[in-house]
Amino acid sequence: MYQPPGVKTSSDLPVPDLMRAWVLGDPDQLLLREKPTPIPSRAEVLVRIDAVAICATDLEIIHAGSPASIQGGAPFNKNFTPGHEYMGTVAALGPNVDEFRIGERVSVEIHAGCGQCKRCRQGMYTSCLNYGRPEKGHRANGFTTDGGFAEYAVNHINTLARVPDTMSDAEATLVVTAGTSMYGLTELGGLVAGESVVVIGPGPIGLLAVAVAKALGASPVILTGTRNKRLAIGRELGADRVININDEDVVEVVKQLTGGIGADYVVECAGTEATLNQAIHMTNRGGKICLAAFPHEAATLDIAHLVRNNIYAYGIRGEGRSATHRAMELMAAKRFDATKIHTHTFPLADLPTALRYARDRVDDAIKVVVTNRKADAIASAAE
Amino acid sequence: MYQPPGVKTSSDLPVPDLMRAWVLGDPDQLLLREKPTPIPSRAEVLVRIDAVAICATDLEIIHAGSPASIQGGAPFNKNFTPGHEYMGTVAALGPNVDEFRIGERVSVEIHAGCGQCKRCRQGMYTSCLNYGRPEKGHRANGFTTDGGFAEYAVNHINTLARVPDTMSDAEATLVVTAGTSMYGLTELGGLVAGESVVVIGPGPIGLLAVAVAKALGASPVILTGTRNKRLAIGRELGADRVININDEDVVEVVKQLTGGIGADYVVECAGTEATLNQAIHMTNRGGKICLAAFPHEAATLDIAHLVRNNIYAYGIRGEGRSATHRAMELMAAKRFDATKIHTHTFPLADLPTALRYARDRVDDAIKVVVTNRKADAIASAAE
Amino acid sequence: MYQPPGVKTSSDLPVPDLMRAWVLGDPDQLLLREKPTPIPSRAEVLVRIDAVAICATDLEIIHAGSPASIQGGAPFNKNFTPGHEYMGTVAALGPNVDEFRIGERVSVEIHAGCGQCKRCRQGMYTSCLNYGRPEKGHRANGFTTDGGFAEYAVNHINTLARVPDTMSDAEATLVVTAGTSMYGLTELGGLVAGESVVVIGPGPIGLLAVAVAKALGASPVILTGTRNKRLAIGRELGADRVININDEDVVEVVKQLTGGIGADYVVECAGTEATLNQAIHMTNRGGKICLAAFPHEAATLDIAHLVRNNIYAYGIRGEGRSATHRAMELMAAKRFDATKIHTHTFPLADLPTALRYARDRVDDAIKVVVTNRKADAIASAAE
Amino acid sequence: MYQPPGVKTSSDLPVPDLMRAWVLGDPDQLLLREKPTPIPSRAEVLVRIDAVAICATDLEIIHAGSPASIQGGAPFNKNFTPGHEYMGTVAALGPNVDEFRIGERVSVEIHAGCGQCKRCRQGMYTSCLNYGRPEKGHRANGFTTDGGFAEYAVNHINTLARVPDTMSDAEATLVVTAGTSMYGLTELGGLVAGESVVVIGPGPIGLLAVAVAKALGASPVILTGTRNKRLAIGRELGADRVININDEDVVEVVKQLTGGIGADYVVECAGTEATLNQAIHMTNRGGKICLAAFPHEAATLDIAHLVRNNIYAYGIRGEGRSATHRAMELMAAKRFDATKIHTHTFPLADLPTALRYARDRVDDAIKVVVTNRKADAIASAAE
Repeated sequence: MYQPPGVKTSSDLPVPDLMRAWVLGDPDQLLLREKPTPIPSRAEVLVRIDAVAICATDLEIIHAGSPASIQGGAPFNKNFTPGHEYMGTVAALGPNVDEFRIGERVSVEIHAGCGQCKRCRQGMYTSCLNYGRPEKGHRANGFTTDGGFAEYAVNHINTLARVPDTMSDAEATLVVTAGTSMYGLTELGGLVAGESVVVIGPGPIGLLAVAVAKALGASPVILTGTRNKRLAIGRELGADRVININDEDVVEVVKQLTGGIGADYVVECAGTEATLNQAIHMTNRGGKICLAAFPHEAATLDIAHLVRNNIYAYGIRGEGRSATHRAMELMAAKRFDATKIHTHTFPLADLPTALRYARDRVDDAIKVVVTNRKADAIASAAE
Repeated sequence: MYQPPGVKTSSDLPVPDLMRAWVLGDPDQLLLREKPTPIPSRAEVLVRIDAVAICATDLEIIHAGSPASIQGGAPFNKNFTPGHEYMGTVAALGPNVDEFRIGERVSVEIHAGCGQCKRCRQGMYTSCLNYGRPEKGHRANGFTTDGGFAEYAVNHINTLARVPDTMSDAEATLVVTAGTSMYGLTELGGLVAGESVVVIGPGPIGLLAVAVAKALGASPVILTGTRNKRLAIGRELGADRVININDEDVVEVVKQLTGGIGADYVVECAGTEATLNQAIHMTNRGGKICLAAFPHEAATLDIAHLVRNNIYAYGIRGEGRSATHRAMELMAAKRFDATKIHTHTFPLADLPTALRYARDRVDDAIKVVVTNRKADAIASAAE
Repeated sequence: MYQPPGVKTSSDLPVPDLMRAWVLGDPDQLLLREKPTPIPSRAEVLVRIDAVAICATDLEIIHAGSPASIQGGAPFNKNFTPGHEYMGTVAALGPNVDEFRIGERVSVEIHAGCGQCKRCRQGMYTSCLNYGRPEKGHRANGFTTDGGFAEYAVNHINTLARVPDTMSDAEATLVVTAGTSMYGLTELGGLVAGESVVVIGPGPIGLLAVAVAKALGASPVILTGTRNKRLAIGRELGADRVININDEDVVEVVKQLTGGIGADYVVECAGTEATLNQAIHMTNRGGKICLAAFPHEAATLDIAHLVRNNIYAYGIRGEGRSATHRAMELMAAKRFDATKIHTHTFPLADLPTALRYARDRVDDAIKVVVTNRKADAIASAAE
Repeated sequence: MYQPPGVKTSSDLPVPDLMRAWVLGDPDQLLLREKPTPIPSRAEVLVRIDAVAICATDLEIIHAGSPASIQGGAPFNKNFTPGHEYMGTVAALGPNVDEFRIGERVSVEIHAGCGQCKRCRQGMYTSCLNYGRPEKGHRANGFTTDGGFAEYAVNHINTLARVPDTMSDAEATLVVTAGTSMYGLTELGGLVAGESVVVIGPGPIGLLAVAVAKALGASPVILTGTRNKRLAIGRELGADRVININDEDVVEVVKQLTGGIGADYVVECAGTEATLNQAIHMTNRGGKICLAAFPHEAATLDIAHLVRNNIYAYGIRGEGRSATHRAMELMAAKRFDATKIHTHTFPLADLPTALRYARDRVDDAIKVVVTNRKADAIASAAE
């Protein structure tokens, strides 16, 4: 049985030495394998994964490998376990960890900075200068270190937030997405009550950006997109106005809704050249844009307009500044219902099906969640 | 003699009712005319202009009109007096003004916000939402309200800083430029001691950004450009390293000079598509870019790199956050010698010649200053 | 009829030349008099006062005079009209005002900075360096310029926020109090979701600080005090836990509730030496204290504890940083019910009775509101 | 020879297994003993101590024990090695450390946060919530973990800054003091160019606060105190004006020097009740006070004045926000000459004499430095 030296375990929650985990084979190939259950070090815990949501980035990693493979030319990282939007139960404690107890339910965030570079020291752990170097203490589970499409994962305690009993496993996986939206609004200034906010793009981050902005008192909150079904969900999450950009002149309408001057804050979650320019043109003088998405090719942008209007643009990566904690708090207090974006659930064993639903938006899928407790047990029985 | 009701004047500094002023005729045409000497209102003073520097924006305004003409399609604003980088002597006080005395030498900044819009209330007066509306109290002398190519101008007291006796008229005109550089560094965070700073483009703002960054303790300060003469002046102003981008791979060299990671702060003062992309690629993870210049056409940029690296970009307009005061203080304390960028001087009557030197960089001109005191007297005598 | 030059009026809302106003006589004496209806200047409007709440500071001013009288030895300001927590209807527009329309319902904040001092220029208008100098443009209605215990008052447009139709007059008067609470939380950092907040003192500001903190997601929110009835209202407004300091060791309990370390933020609204020291001792390392109240005598404090624990303390005055706008937005969205602190209503003609209820807490009075519309008409009829 | 597993050493700089170290005996007793040379862990290095300055806190620790002994009632920590203002040479590298090379000269700061608590995650490592718990990764060398009155110490790489060749060992020890001054100015806002700054108390931190404020462009910089010799050194370090509080009404003079309104920033380094009240009364509306010292007993303060004037007070502990790096950079660039406060030097073996000079201010001692290289060798030979 799993009992590494220095690690605290509990007979209430026995951990096997080997676990099932999905791993990268060749590009676009995922294989279900047995792997040694990982071992938490100092300031880390072992998390039994109970549920994990699928993000578009997962699909990219399965297709093209880790960020180092995609951007840096590193070889495709076979045997890597992706998955980063998970939650679970603390199953073992690394040396000296007393911040959590075995059996506590926890949600995660992706980034654990090295704690020793200049950026980490400034509190900017998602911009860790030792990104991708686990030997320096950096972890980005599901990106550079093994993630959540498995039975267990190791997490730095910094990446954990407690899940209240009143929150389901599936809802808790959505804290990662909500945390990204919250991080964006945090970097824009945080004080959004009474400010006009436009969210571009009703994907998961955009929809929860609507919810978080509204929960913090932003007014009006405007959501733009092309799919009316998604825009309708945005309305349910609090958008005061939705704009289908195929039907209306989005910049013009935003100006009308904001006394002619444009929006104070724009959260760009669509990442196309067209929407980036819309963001620039709909932001008012002295306003701010959060870039939460991006086109993979260079984009031709009206930078002159941005500079002339003293607009600031914030490229954000992940969910920094402990934003997941703030998101969790608002969700725990039922300030918004993130589960409105959760559309489908599959057992872990059916991950390939779940990925297909997410990739192809089968049956209008938004967030597809894979579970590894009861549902998984049932799935296992059915195999 | 000039004695408007409610305005305080002094027999020590008599003011004529009419003054000489250069005004816009047709595009690219400047005419020397007589105009009524303007009258200061509440919180305003009349400044006798003693010296005024020429900025590239002046040339643009003379060619194409005010910002409203250039961007908004307003008709070309004939009879307007451009010129915004001036200094002078307080010659009359508006009602209730006791913050300044007649006879004090003052430098200026361009923007006086309306004081009543949301941005002004946040201290962001260069992003005044009533830009271009003098009836709301907004002034941008030389842009939307009459400027400094004249004998007198009205200034809001917020736009003034005292000039120490030890500073020449010509040097004091450079506070506007230094203030823009200081504003950029302020918005990037202000705490630049020990941080790596790259300045792209050795124009006046770039060269003084080098000086200000060095004065605040930045290290290393790197200047990039194409003209070796200009780069050499950058060295004199404090650049630890200059890079001629025609000779070296600028992104590569910056990385080498910064431990492989790139610069903490980049101040982009060249405004070309190529240099904007260099700025993006040479900034480190979590670093920041100040956009102090821009191309007039849309630029094709690697936004993906910016977002993936959590880089923030700040489009700045003018010299906000009282940055001219901080710049003046460093100049008064001789922390750097801004006059290294002052290359030529002409009397006000020779403004057309001065403009030609500035536009065509005759004789390697950088900052061309026009004076209106002794030199002007001599010029007048020569007419 | 009232029609000052340059001022826009409307026949829909005729304004008399003379109005009724309560004015200071001798100390502790208020007299109902006729006064000329005041005239709005540039960037100002005339507000017909529909309701005004009573604040403890009003009682102090009626007793001892304006701040200049109290602190600076100025003579008691007879004929002054106090009252600063009011709301009403825009009745006339100063020259060039187009930001509001006649007939709009508006709430107010107290401070209109001069717009031309260093602090105003930083956006810190409640710290205006021209405080008390109306000739410089400063106004603090009810403190240094005539206030709301009257039929009309002049307000700078910066001090106004629109009142939605769904909000009663009485509720709208509470925005001033909620704005002070919001300002305190803003200065503490603003991002309070998931942070532990203790509010000391269940007076109006304290009770609404509980409500605002909870609305922004703070958790836990703890309220301390001595009166159980007030603490019970705090619970209704969102306090997760209340502590009667006569019954429990407040510092000890706060530590227990915060994992042994103390609170992240403390909002001190009681202003006694004992509670100030409690605030210091219950704040965690690196935590922050907002001082929203103060004892009139010097207080003996454990400064060593504050310094050793890197605690920051923010003395706040009024409701700066546009906090009333954020408070209004949360109230308009029904995030909390401020009317829980509104206990009594009287017509304007009964102001002395209203003041007595407020001063002596007759019938457990918390906020006493004086109205000047229908209720007032009835009261007039009954005279 | 010293060669712990996983630790990198060099034959160029051989390290003994045992080292000489001063340790606490009974209160006020220091003993020179042999101790095992400490071993660096992950992200740590071994520093050969070349020089160490004496701080008033050292005297307190020798007298009364560690912070836990002084404040928390822990037993007096015998065998502990105090000393925290040191510099030296990197002598060995912990596992995976490649940020430094053996042989590099380094200065230190005191605090290495745990990297895993809420405050560390915010970049506030001097407010680490695991203060005093080395098992969590926290270190405060000379306070809670062994310090610099020894031949070697272990330092987290976060606490190190490189020392340029042009800086002497003695000067490099002063970076800790300058870093505290810099931290104070950082927390006050950082942008002090042109702002009025008063420093109260010409001790080491106060004198270097003068130097740092002046280097950053503050004007005027005013120093107050009682000893004219110290005030004279303040002048040399850049004070525009010094005030002997025995000779002048300090609050009155500060107001005169600041246009009647008081100072923007006050750095309180004297820590008496009288000077704390002076700080409150000399700060202008909206101004800020840094509390860098404190009386050991409770102090009776005019809190009403602080609150009424919207003044913020920042209790600071140590040298956070990487302020030592910024201080080092200014010192390396010779922006001020910190050695003006260095008055005496002794070899490590004469530590008791050095401490006596510091405690009793023998021969007007300010900073007394103990060295452990050549001077020490000479001292050893003389034993």
